[in-house]
Amino acid sequence: MQPLFFNLDSDCPLSNTLRDSLNAEVGEVQRRSFPDEESYLRVMSDCKNRKVLIFCNLYQPNEKVMPLIFLAATLRELGASSVGLVTPYLAYMRQDIAFHSGECVTSRHFAALLSQHFDWLVTVDPHLHRYHSLDEIYQLKGRVAPAAPVIAKWIQAHIEKPLLIGPDSESEQWVSQVAQLADAPFQILNKIRRGDFDVEVSLPNIEHYQQHTPVLVDDIISSGKTMLQTLQHLEHAGLNKATAIGVHGLFAQDAYQQLSKISDVVTCNTVPHPSNQICVAEAIVQAAAEFL
Amino acid sequence: MQPLFFNLDSDCPLSNTLRDSLNAEVGEVQRRSFPDEESYLRVMSDCKNRKVLIFCNLYQPNEKVMPLIFLAATLRELGASSVGLVTPYLAYMRQDIAFHSGECVTSRHFAALLSQHFDWLVTVDPHLHRYHSLDEIYQLKGRVAPAAPVIAKWIQAHIEKPLLIGPDSESEQWVSQVAQLADAPFQILNKIRRGDFDVEVSLPNIEHYQQHTPVLVDDIISSGKTMLQTLQHLEHAGLNKATAIGVHGLFAQDAYQQLSKISDVVTCNTVPHPSNQICVAEAIVQAAAEFL
Repeated sequence: MQPLFFNLDSDCPLSNTLRDSLNAEVGEVQRRSFPDEESYLRVMSDCKNRKVLIFCNLYQPNEKVMPLIFLAATLRELGASSVGLVTPYLAYMRQDIAFHSGECVTSRHFAALLSQHFDWLVTVDPHLHRYHSLDEIYQLKGRVAPAAPVIAKWIQAHIEKPLLIGPDSESEQWVSQVAQLADAPFQILNKIRRGDFDVEVSLPNIEHYQQHTPVLVDDIISSGKTMLQTLQHLEHAGLNKATAIGVHGLFAQDAYQQLSKISDVVTCNTVPHPSNQICVAEAIVQAAAEFL
Repeated sequence: MQPLFFNLDSDCPLSNTLRDSLNAEVGEVQRRSFPDEESYLRVMSDCKNRKVLIFCNLYQPNEKVMPLIFLAATLRELGASSVGLVTPYLAYMRQDIAFHSGECVTSRHFAALLSQHFDWLVTVDPHLHRYHSLDEIYQLKGRVAPAAPVIAKWIQAHIEKPLLIGPDSESEQWVSQVAQLADAPFQILNKIRRGDFDVEVSLPNIEHYQQHTPVLVDDIISSGKTMLQTLQHLEHAGLNKATAIGVHGLFAQDAYQQLSKISDVVTCNTVPHPSNQICVAEAIVQAAAEFL
């Protein structure tokens, strides 16, 4: 029997692509808000013994969580055999430690809440820094849909003579992976810090790459400051106009405008934005397949 | 030792009154939002072995819940001996049954969520209709601060010759209580329904009350339609201009404007609104006292 696909995020065009690719039946849910902004939900589809998944993209998460867990709990009560969550962007992954005493480690509390309501979860490249896998905080079957292969494919199709650039040694693992998949060379910048505001950056073997298009890749573009700084270094080094790729383009304040001035900015469609050019639907479908 | 009072609702003037009345120490919490609208919270006060309470007024609840449970969980981790919630308006009490198949009974799921994070809860007159007490759905110590005594006191101080009016027989218990506390007479309207849109209303012994000020009381004014209809009936019956009192004034759309045209509208300060004239602080303080 087809899985049931409930969409709680009408703003995200990706959801339609996914529903079609998953060959899922549309689950119907009526929603409205009461005058005090309480949510009303009514499931109109028969869920008994059906596998169901909810699409809900958890950027700007706070106002989405209540309807999400209400729907999940209701689907379970109505007899769904499993309830999964597909969220292209998984919020609350970055506060993964109390950097200062008294800080709320939101990643753990958010994970606990979702784990209570879902059997499985699929997301695209969650921000795993101190955690090495979703399993460290999520008590559900968490699966990661990797963006690197589709990013590599996009680079191959759209960039002539790409040179993958990592802004620092931390990025090497990720950048080298995309470079390998795209069959392209990569270089990691050397940073020599002379003081708080005095950082010299060098690109090894720069003379070899005058004809290449530098391509920067990062998982989340938020303030965009690191990326902007790196782009400026590349510009000063006399390289061609760069392409800046982000998996998740959050773009705080004028980050997108700033980056667009000196690069072509491209993102995956995990967070809806005019820069979305790389579709992660296939990766999500593959990751979700085992549950459906 | 003084209890610690954390305020998550800077828009609610009632919180300051409460903090002072409870002789509580201000708990300091830093809050900000990240570009993807995730919440950051850091507790700056030492909570170890302290009784703490969070003031968070849960009208428009959805966007408030995540910071609220993050803070509660963090306070507990930091060693608070008990964590309580004061919410003058308690959301999600009205969907207390699936009126139609597939409806989410939000009251139960919301109660389960708050019960996980709090030891106790104080609220003003929650909408108890099919539930008879908070204990039926909340797994914590729930205490109700009653509005009737302060409403009765306000009526005595501000209304000359009040006549309490109940719009229908369901309201009798509540209206008679306020009337008794205010030492005022009360009358319940008789409704004779002749069709869906044809309701005749009669007020027994109307000739006795030509000099009185009719006073309507309801727990929640939302669409205000029942109240507006009742006011129109009283006007047609030739009574003086009425006073319409709501415990919780939610006022959907133009409800306040409509009601104000033919009555003086007065509410308790459980939901901030220009009509707030009746302070429930003392009732809340008394209800919370046993936990502090």
